[in-house]
Amino acid sequence: MYSFKNDYSEGAHPKILNALLETNLVQDEGYGEDRYSRKAIELIKRKIGSNDVDIHFISGGTQTNLIAISAFLRPHEAAIAVSSGHILGHETGAIEATGHKILSVEGRDGKLTPTDIQGVLDGHPDEHMVKPKLVYISNSTEIGSIYTKHELQTLHDFCQNNQLILYMDGARLGSALCSEENDLQLSDLPELVDAFYIGGTKNGALIGEALVISTDSLKEDFRYHIKQKGALLAKGRLMGIQFLELFRDNLFFDLATHANKMAGLLREELSNSQINFLTHSPSNQLFPILPNSLIAELQNKYSFHIWEKVDSDTSAIRLVTSWATKEEEVVGFIEELKMVLRGISV
Amino acid sequence: MYSFKNDYSEGAHPKILNALLETNLVQDEGYGEDRYSRKAIELIKRKIGSNDVDIHFISGGTQTNLIAISAFLRPHEAAIAVSSGHILGHETGAIEATGHKILSVEGRDGKLTPTDIQGVLDGHPDEHMVKPKLVYISNSTEIGSIYTKHELQTLHDFCQNNQLILYMDGARLGSALCSEENDLQLSDLPELVDAFYIGGTKNGALIGEALVISTDSLKEDFRYHIKQKGALLAKGRLMGIQFLELFRDNLFFDLATHANKMAGLLREELSNSQINFLTHSPSNQLFPILPNSLIAELQNKYSFHIWEKVDSDTSAIRLVTSWATKEEEVVGFIEELKMVLRGISV
Amino acid sequence: MYSFKNDYSEGAHPKILNALLETNLVQDEGYGEDRYSRKAIELIKRKIGSNDVDIHFISGGTQTNLIAISAFLRPHEAAIAVSSGHILGHETGAIEATGHKILSVEGRDGKLTPTDIQGVLDGHPDEHMVKPKLVYISNSTEIGSIYTKHELQTLHDFCQNNQLILYMDGARLGSALCSEENDLQLSDLPELVDAFYIGGTKNGALIGEALVISTDSLKEDFRYHIKQKGALLAKGRLMGIQFLELFRDNLFFDLATHANKMAGLLREELSNSQINFLTHSPSNQLFPILPNSLIAELQNKYSFHIWEKVDSDTSAIRLVTSWATKEEEVVGFIEELKMVLRGISV
Amino acid sequence: MYSFKNDYSEGAHPKILNALLETNLVQDEGYGEDRYSRKAIELIKRKIGSNDVDIHFISGGTQTNLIAISAFLRPHEAAIAVSSGHILGHETGAIEATGHKILSVEGRDGKLTPTDIQGVLDGHPDEHMVKPKLVYISNSTEIGSIYTKHELQTLHDFCQNNQLILYMDGARLGSALCSEENDLQLSDLPELVDAFYIGGTKNGALIGEALVISTDSLKEDFRYHIKQKGALLAKGRLMGIQFLELFRDNLFFDLATHANKMAGLLREELSNSQINFLTHSPSNQLFPILPNSLIAELQNKYSFHIWEKVDSDTSAIRLVTSWATKEEEVVGFIEELKMVLRGISV
Repeated sequence: MYSFKNDYSEGAHPKILNALLETNLVQDEGYGEDRYSRKAIELIKRKIGSNDVDIHFISGGTQTNLIAISAFLRPHEAAIAVSSGHILGHETGAIEATGHKILSVEGRDGKLTPTDIQGVLDGHPDEHMVKPKLVYISNSTEIGSIYTKHELQTLHDFCQNNQLILYMDGARLGSALCSEENDLQLSDLPELVDAFYIGGTKNGALIGEALVISTDSLKEDFRYHIKQKGALLAKGRLMGIQFLELFRDNLFFDLATHANKMAGLLREELSNSQINFLTHSPSNQLFPILPNSLIAELQNKYSFHIWEKVDSDTSAIRLVTSWATKEEEVVGFIEELKMVLRGISV
Repeated sequence: MYSFKNDYSEGAHPKILNALLETNLVQDEGYGEDRYSRKAIELIKRKIGSNDVDIHFISGGTQTNLIAISAFLRPHEAAIAVSSGHILGHETGAIEATGHKILSVEGRDGKLTPTDIQGVLDGHPDEHMVKPKLVYISNSTEIGSIYTKHELQTLHDFCQNNQLILYMDGARLGSALCSEENDLQLSDLPELVDAFYIGGTKNGALIGEALVISTDSLKEDFRYHIKQKGALLAKGRLMGIQFLELFRDNLFFDLATHANKMAGLLREELSNSQINFLTHSPSNQLFPILPNSLIAELQNKYSFHIWEKVDSDTSAIRLVTSWATKEEEVVGFIEELKMVLRGISV
Repeated sequence: MYSFKNDYSEGAHPKILNALLETNLVQDEGYGEDRYSRKAIELIKRKIGSNDVDIHFISGGTQTNLIAISAFLRPHEAAIAVSSGHILGHETGAIEATGHKILSVEGRDGKLTPTDIQGVLDGHPDEHMVKPKLVYISNSTEIGSIYTKHELQTLHDFCQNNQLILYMDGARLGSALCSEENDLQLSDLPELVDAFYIGGTKNGALIGEALVISTDSLKEDFRYHIKQKGALLAKGRLMGIQFLELFRDNLFFDLATHANKMAGLLREELSNSQINFLTHSPSNQLFPILPNSLIAELQNKYSFHIWEKVDSDTSAIRLVTSWATKEEEVVGFIEELKMVLRGISV
Repeated sequence: MYSFKNDYSEGAHPKILNALLETNLVQDEGYGEDRYSRKAIELIKRKIGSNDVDIHFISGGTQTNLIAISAFLRPHEAAIAVSSGHILGHETGAIEATGHKILSVEGRDGKLTPTDIQGVLDGHPDEHMVKPKLVYISNSTEIGSIYTKHELQTLHDFCQNNQLILYMDGARLGSALCSEENDLQLSDLPELVDAFYIGGTKNGALIGEALVISTDSLKEDFRYHIKQKGALLAKGRLMGIQFLELFRDNLFFDLATHANKMAGLLREELSNSQINFLTHSPSNQLFPILPNSLIAELQNKYSFHIWEKVDSDTSAIRLVTSWATKEEEVVGFIEELKMVLRGISV
């Protein structure tokens, strides 16, 4: 049974494990003040092309989101997210547990537009309601779409004009930036968003996301927040060493490129088989719509999520590829699918 | 510069890294539902001698404390801790950030007694004050002392009679249980405390604590709390694999025994040199009181924390040993100290 | 300028003020333990026909909602509310500020049905999402509708079968129970909901809501929660005296009946003038849909809320009547409206 | 049985009730935007001698403290209070429930000094601990003492130099300012503290405290915080009308002066009878130390709190006077006490 369930089914890229091995017995400071973490931060700053950012390593996505959002907002302020946003429905109310409401809007293709946000602002005029303050977006989104540079620039300008904080969840930022449809650079981000994170867990690391804060007023005392939420790892080096390896050369991008390539293979072959998709996804998550009987057959050999019912006969499934996805398994999956399809059509 | 600063200055025990390597490319479920985590839980249950416990792996000590305590308490309930307790002064208000007050008592030797707790109960008679509900203890304590079985039994009985939850922070439980003065077994704990955790981070793991909940009413829905606090790691296997290795044979206890042995060497030689200690510590943390000039000399070659000023001429330092501490470095430290001492006395 | 803006534009019913005057210099206990509060609680219990309830006086609706909901829920549990629910959009995130998400459903006529709730339960199957636990309803609702006994019984049964807490916001319970379409009795409520409150502020009191808790497991330590949220008034007698007056004879119901009668007058005359309503409201809030030009004219002499735009030419306004509404002002309003209508149609 | 238990045993001063009566049927805006509240704010600003303050009416002391402190602090910041501070032990963890730790220091005479605060700052150097940010003081204090202008100036300067917010709980500010030992003016406060409140509940009002915020950065969006904590009363006029009456002429100060005068009588006569006091209190709370047998006798005719055991034979009791305290009852109490004393000494 091969899994296309997610991009965190394996351990870490071997180069990362190797780096852990090589540095294992070196003594160093705890709590992220070790040489590896410091060096990794310098490296990422260079890749980003800015020294005016603060970077912190945090173990996972929900952890990063809740620490950042609760640190950035005052008690009466709220976040705005598209209805498919991860913080809304898949983080067990982590943001609300820190005291903040999330205002949901429909959006389009899993993305937010200034019009969406303006609607929220219009509906929240006074102190009887929360004050919308932070705009949460994901890139790539939860349904595989990505933001163009123009879309992000437009959002940024709107947020600036309305004193809103723009925050990007980059759990799958690698896949977004390496997508063939992408026109954003990592170095564009500090100017376009107030804070974002570079996802390690879903792109080859064991754990770890690199939170990048570019707006000065959001930087102050940030390590207090990490510690208070229980996320300042004693052996912070575990994340520093991994990010050092991911950004020493081009590994972070190479891994995402591989994931995208595997998704591209699937996308192309599914399209060739006249299969429609629930969403337009140029990244490493695909949502093909398949007959339920076909899904049942595929489940004998492959594991994946059934995303949602489309009609009485068909459902969308989610196929996720990663740095670890094997090309032969992709090929095998397609062959199996084609074979079953032929059987059904006969 | 060799460090006796803490027990998390290195990576992980090589066997643990090896286990990560060997399992690295195996696909498995996320969020701690993988085979390694499940197997590790089974193993620990066997070592504990009970199937009636729930076990969860959480990345660090502060994280574990805040999740457990906030899950166990209702909003108006408070924790009681000794003034040196880790949750009181070294977790950036993590417990208070979840809404709960911690009531501090002086205690003795870093430990709590029924008399201490009774005093707190007497001082909190009604709804104008918080309701004391959870007793937080550490074993070994923050100043190196350990609980005897009798002391723990007494605390347990008192808590039972007063509807109090007894929770043990086991960041350094390995060192406590392997101390020469210890008369507790791991298997005694489920009957003596309502919940406790087995510290991995400070005993050879990269990250990870195993929270053991023995009281039924505290078990319900616990995974929700882990997720809500951002601590349900996508690659939960990272902790499962490590604990599997720690408890497959006797590694967890072997590592703690080594740490204690190194501490024992230091303790003996320091005592022989007529050096007094701030606290009675039979575990892997020692607090010798040294002349300030000696401390300054030692700092040229060794790193450690200066714990507190004792008088104008002397201070207590903290020396911590671990699974990774090298005997030759301990010997070297003692020789250096003796040499400097001779210089001073001359 | 006469106001139909809300039911809290005046002070208190004169009988209530009188009671405050008469008791003013009597010394008594603080924090709601005075004779008046105790007697008022006994009286309400008698009216409810049950001794098995706990009753607490709390200053306002948002305060009551946030104290009750945060006391009833564990950290990972969420409330369910209809999209027009007061806690969702008009309490500045008060519930989220205590850590709990509110799950919004569309509902119908401002009311929830088991089907709505089942949909929420189906969408929240595991620990990656909050656990829906409390169902929040208002009676009368925010758009003036009321629950029938059958509807409430059905909700109650569904909640019981699904281990859900059913909580009723009774800010305008008086108006609901005195509506001509109502078939519920105050004495039905303890069996049909786990907790509810009897709104005083919007039915003749200066401040004060009487929270009634009927389910035993929700009663424990409740005064701690009131105090912790800053709502245990030193001079709790202020609320006790008022509720004593409201329930000594029939004042509470008389006042609501008057408010409903005034709303009835408006409803009838507006209907006679072929004016449609945004919602079916048999209680003291009406939402007639009027031409914008007519609204502008009326605003010269009357104040009220413009509720929502209906199309480019018309909007719904909200007219609220109360215990203090004067019949001659209602008559005047109708005459003015008819006069303007004639002008428009000419 | 006459009560010296507290200063909130009666209703309100008759002039205040009268004002409620006179304005009762006037329609006005809700939520504190009525003419009475606005006028009361203008009046208080004039008495304070500053237009650069924001003033908000909030129902009680705990409510005011928790709203102000949670609005002023970021999540990782903590308050500092003297060990007898009301927020520490008598508000059911209300501050912690908003996420903030309170750091307790011993202080002297119920008051804080720069030395106390410096000690806290020294002990909280980094992100492993909370960041001390707000200094909470009460005037008069919980044990009856008052701050001199010099003491307050010194605290103010220290706080300014250390970026600390200085907040004064003025539950009994009236009594403090009208004390014979006082050298502070109401108009001094905006320059000496960042925020303070003028207590109404304990000085003749039914409910209500007037929070005065003088530091600009603390003013923003404050009404959101009041609403979010459930404290924005629909009939905010209830507080506006009362404060208007308290500050229209000199009522606020007259009432406090009466309370102090009654306390002065008690103090003088007790001193004449060679009775010692637990604390030096020049305000309306006295803590005489009496033989336990005398206390038992007095309790037959008077109610008051037994404050603390002093030795095996004596205890300190708390006697509180108020605007409503009758001189003949004070005289009666003293006579009774003297009579019993004579009995004892015979």
